Amino acid sequence: MTQRIKAGIVGATGYTGVELLRLLTSHPNVEVAAVTSRSEAGIKLSDYFPSLRGVYELTFQTPDEARLDECDIVFFATPNGVAMKEAPLLLELGVRIVDLSADYRIKDIPTWEKWYGMRHESPNITAEAVYGLSELNRDAISTARLVANPGCYPTCVSLPLLPLLQAGRLKTGAPLIADCKSGVSGAGRKASVGTLLCEAGDNFKAYGVGGHRHLPEIKQTLNMLQTGIADGLVFVPHLTPMIRGMHATMYLHLESGRHPHEILADFYRDSSFVDVMPSGSTPETRSVRGANFCRISVQQAPQSDVWIVLSVIDNLVKGAAGQAVQNMNLMFGFTENAGLDGVPLLP
Amino acid sequence: MTQRIKAGIVGATGYTGVELLRLLTSHPNVEVAAVTSRSEAGIKLSDYFPSLRGVYELTFQTPDEARLDECDIVFFATPNGVAMKEAPLLLELGVRIVDLSADYRIKDIPTWEKWYGMRHESPNITAEAVYGLSELNRDAISTARLVANPGCYPTCVSLPLLPLLQAGRLKTGAPLIADCKSGVSGAGRKASVGTLLCEAGDNFKAYGVGGHRHLPEIKQTLNMLQTGIADGLVFVPHLTPMIRGMHATMYLHLESGRHPHEILADFYRDSSFVDVMPSGSTPETRSVRGANFCRISVQQAPQSDVWIVLSVIDNLVKGAAGQAVQNMNLMFGFTENAGLDGVPLLP
Amino acid sequence: MTQRIKAGIVGATGYTGVELLRLLTSHPNVEVAAVTSRSEAGIKLSDYFPSLRGVYELTFQTPDEARLDECDIVFFATPNGVAMKEAPLLLELGVRIVDLSADYRIKDIPTWEKWYGMRHESPNITAEAVYGLSELNRDAISTARLVANPGCYPTCVSLPLLPLLQAGRLKTGAPLIADCKSGVSGAGRKASVGTLLCEAGDNFKAYGVGGHRHLPEIKQTLNMLQTGIADGLVFVPHLTPMIRGMHATMYLHLESGRHPHEILADFYRDSSFVDVMPSGSTPETRSVRGANFCRISVQQAPQSDVWIVLSVIDNLVKGAAGQAVQNMNLMFGFTENAGLDGVPLLP
Amino acid sequence: MTQRIKAGIVGATGYTGVELLRLLTSHPNVEVAAVTSRSEAGIKLSDYFPSLRGVYELTFQTPDEARLDECDIVFFATPNGVAMKEAPLLLELGVRIVDLSADYRIKDIPTWEKWYGMRHESPNITAEAVYGLSELNRDAISTARLVANPGCYPTCVSLPLLPLLQAGRLKTGAPLIADCKSGVSGAGRKASVGTLLCEAGDNFKAYGVGGHRHLPEIKQTLNMLQTGIADGLVFVPHLTPMIRGMHATMYLHLESGRHPHEILADFYRDSSFVDVMPSGSTPETRSVRGANFCRISVQQAPQSDVWIVLSVIDNLVKGAAGQAVQNMNLMFGFTENAGLDGVPLLP
Repeated sequence: MTQRIKAGIVGATGYTGVELLRLLTSHPNVEVAAVTSRSEAGIKLSDYFPSLRGVYELTFQTPDEARLDECDIVFFATPNGVAMKEAPLLLELGVRIVDLSADYRIKDIPTWEKWYGMRHESPNITAEAVYGLSELNRDAISTARLVANPGCYPTCVSLPLLPLLQAGRLKTGAPLIADCKSGVSGAGRKASVGTLLCEAGDNFKAYGVGGHRHLPEIKQTLNMLQTGIADGLVFVPHLTPMIRGMHATMYLHLESGRHPHEILADFYRDSSFVDVMPSGSTPETRSVRGANFCRISVQQAPQSDVWIVLSVIDNLVKGAAGQAVQNMNLMFGFTENAGLDGVPLLP
Repeated sequence: MTQRIKAGIVGATGYTGVELLRLLTSHPNVEVAAVTSRSEAGIKLSDYFPSLRGVYELTFQTPDEARLDECDIVFFATPNGVAMKEAPLLLELGVRIVDLSADYRIKDIPTWEKWYGMRHESPNITAEAVYGLSELNRDAISTARLVANPGCYPTCVSLPLLPLLQAGRLKTGAPLIADCKSGVSGAGRKASVGTLLCEAGDNFKAYGVGGHRHLPEIKQTLNMLQTGIADGLVFVPHLTPMIRGMHATMYLHLESGRHPHEILADFYRDSSFVDVMPSGSTPETRSVRGANFCRISVQQAPQSDVWIVLSVIDNLVKGAAGQAVQNMNLMFGFTENAGLDGVPLLP
Repeated sequence: MTQRIKAGIVGATGYTGVELLRLLTSHPNVEVAAVTSRSEAGIKLSDYFPSLRGVYELTFQTPDEARLDECDIVFFATPNGVAMKEAPLLLELGVRIVDLSADYRIKDIPTWEKWYGMRHESPNITAEAVYGLSELNRDAISTARLVANPGCYPTCVSLPLLPLLQAGRLKTGAPLIADCKSGVSGAGRKASVGTLLCEAGDNFKAYGVGGHRHLPEIKQTLNMLQTGIADGLVFVPHLTPMIRGMHATMYLHLESGRHPHEILADFYRDSSFVDVMPSGSTPETRSVRGANFCRISVQQAPQSDVWIVLSVIDNLVKGAAGQAVQNMNLMFGFTENAGLDGVPLLP
Repeated sequence: MTQRIKAGIVGATGYTGVELLRLLTSHPNVEVAAVTSRSEAGIKLSDYFPSLRGVYELTFQTPDEARLDECDIVFFATPNGVAMKEAPLLLELGVRIVDLSADYRIKDIPTWEKWYGMRHESPNITAEAVYGLSELNRDAISTARLVANPGCYPTCVSLPLLPLLQAGRLKTGAPLIADCKSGVSGAGRKASVGTLLCEAGDNFKAYGVGGHRHLPEIKQTLNMLQTGIADGLVFVPHLTPMIRGMHATMYLHLESGRHPHEILADFYRDSSFVDVMPSGSTPETRSVRGANFCRISVQQAPQSDVWIVLSVIDNLVKGAAGQAVQNMNLMFGFTENAGLDGVPLLP
């Protein structure tokens, strides 16, 4: 008999929330039991998101009404600073949690507080949170009560580097550069001038060059695998005029040895969601639109000793809601790709 | 035991072809057995469409290699003029067909030949073809050997009008106007200057004002339900800078009677794919992106006796590949929404 | 000797403000002496709009600091409700005004108050304001102290209809339909969810079907030329995923007589900014991008007695800042196209 | 008295051609006397580009009809391989030339032939051609008969590096990386699948990673200033879903000394078209849309010894037609910014 669990989504009015709702409709083991929003309480979900008409009969509730304690799992699809307040009680009540916000990603609390500009209200919980980069931490995730779902940039940048780090191939002391490009949905669904169609459309720019919150998160992941390797990481995010999609172009120096393509291909041989493409390929973001994939290629720059890694994800799927579902699958022993076998939408 | 059939796709290199392939991955009763393309024969499907990597192991074949005669159903996702040559033999061999091109849509052969600018090579077959507007012709489709899948504009325009026509509510002799807007994918995946990003992007224009091929198709459907009602139909298509999506804004004059919203809601009460929204709503194209829905609203213009009907579809889904799958489901007695329960991708 | 005047811009942080600033750089008779913004006072204009680096040395000032009374002309590029408070004093001090907001467009104060949802604070000034549809009111504009610059939809819809109305060709009692499509910049430069790239991008929808503020403005203009002709006007605006551009598709019934193309061509023979294209043409919005043109074509719908009028403008230029400059030129006796001879940006 | 010259444009049907035509309308010293196109001969320019209606009375002519020998200057806005055939005769006849194609950019003929895949038909002319990076070669350009107008990537990448090279600040042997992003108009106005709105829209990808034609051009420029400095240059171009605009993100290692911002600011103090922004700025492509600017900023990556240079141009203006006009101005002793003082179109 199929196991069925109840899921709640806190903060379901944003892009990661509605993407979770979309993915979970096709999940054989999950019933969405509650969606919460303080500002939209009382509004029918299908009135708020007409794309969900006929799909869900739910109505937004306040967190109090929603009886999240009766859920088996709760997803926080909230702005930073909410989960750190509300997660501890749910954990005590036996609810397992995937937090899509940044609240529990950074182990070092002063670092977190510096980058996120607030006092952490449940720092003791951070220690137990498992960093939910699924392909890195499958075992720990499977028994976790609390999973800190990675940021989109850290997912896109870390996945191609894990195998090379594990194989000891990244040259220490050499420059490590991640030039990253994101679609605008990464900024979330909130009123703001900078992400208006008339500001972000037909335009390309870098941002956060002097420092971006995902920098310490990437460094933490990489340095955990090889102390100090990411201390000098250069990370430049850019905003590109599209809705979904993220592209990392990385410039590496490698110790000599097997072709890195082979190392990546071996490492991800049994991973459904990481596609190591032939060396020389150029993955494009639309090839993962709406799907939980990361596609990667690696090749040497012509007449140079620099290696170029290209990596693409859909920032809302493998970079957020999809990876959250993947983590839930690991936590509950479901098939890892349950709810995640949708094919990318092209064109 | 689940019935399984074999499907072939002729001309799978275009947008309707790749969309069929995407939809059929989740269909419980269908195995895609062959994809053909003369120009790409020998190329792996997943090399041609990286979005299908890991999904299909197929390779493009020439029609001769492909043994389409061993398929239970063949979809023609070809330019106009191909199916009319190749369908007759397959029908003789017992293969059922859904033709996504325009070859068998128009019953009157001289009309077809005038609008499509070529001689029809199998006019005798046209008579037996069932026009595949699923919600109109469910019974006939279920026994059809050959289904002529409707055009995108005719689907978007006809669906809201059927119930009003059947109820005798469209005023004869009054203007009937369909102002339609299409995303660029309606033009297909072929090299052309007019649909370059730099030509069609950040631009809006009408086209085909003096006559568009979908005009006689719409007239045929409407006039079949009420002779002459569509003789004076005014149809103006426009190109809008987006990939998928079609929006019809129709201006009608109605005989007095029940509110047309009720008529539509009653008519489509048991139809999974036609969503009659509350009067006063404004459906948006992204609310059906990637899904087989038509969403409709109807309301009276302020201080006027004109009624305004708004109708949206994804031109590649309900306007092409999705409706083709729906028709196949009807033909083979599958659940009508098999393979079609994907939720629209938003944002 | 070239006459030079001083201009001030109130509310220069929005799209019509920055467009005014762009256009005025090439104006031989105007020096921009002051730009005001309460919220940005003290910020250099070129820091706020990097596109103006090296072009202007101005700094935003509060209205008090700005000494607008020393200007010959002041443009209000403000949200509705500001000019009605600040214009009267400036007029008293001898400053001439072009108001780009809606404050003085509607002659009937209760109508204005109903549609704009506030009490009018200088209703007595409305009477003297000249409606700045340049091609309609050249003489009155030339002597006006206060010009109410038209809305974008009213400009796009009214320009093609003026000649037909003047010639008495619009059939009374017949439906008059304006199906209009606007780029997103028409919504202005303010934080809002609905105009985010991720909401308005790759999407098409109608809005304001039940009533839009530009409806009474259009009716006022048309009814002034022929009493009651626009009482039943149906006006449906749509949002299209592009930055600039507006397209009106109008459906008319005409009394028999000369071809309407001839009537339009005659009417606009000496107008630099209205381009009557050959009948059968389809003007596209990008053909006027960044320029002060309205391009129009008119043709009969096939097999119908309905006439189709297509009209395009750049909503920020002929629909706002460009027409404002044109009106200033008329007010001060400058060459009508001074500052307005830029060629549309294509692609 | 104002000097007036006659200009001809060969291949005026493409994007650089129509941009030249747009810019030259505001040039006080130039009359466009002829536009040629073999395929469109006999078509009125304003019928082909409706944005030019009312601006030019010209008609496309064949090269033979066009009497280019009567022009003072001829611009080649042609595909590669045309100028090398037609330029020599015009030069002999005393016509000066700016070639916007790549025919005369690469001094080493075997290198050119390898990258452009054809035999060079006038290699002897290459030697005399002056590379038209205006800010680098002002003096040589002023006396040149033939100017090879630089590619868009080489312009965007080279301008920020020139001052650092001249000051001897680029570290030899260290990685030099240029991660570049281009709008789609860089691919030109030709029918092709890859640049369709439905392929290039809502998508981001790298291309030409294994080698791009602009790589040897950039290397030639940089190595001319410091032998060998660019031998290991890594250049990765990307396609971004917008019409105009180019963004280079460069990662450099510098010898210690003055802040590079000061070096750049000093170098370009008297250059109208290169804007060195404050260190820490992030120039955006729309801040140069339609204008002949290159905006640059330079800053050190946090916790790293890598320097980050950001550089933006409009690929059709400073990256093509605008720089061509600038070069013409230098050649004929006109004011350097004649015809080039348009303000960027924002939004």
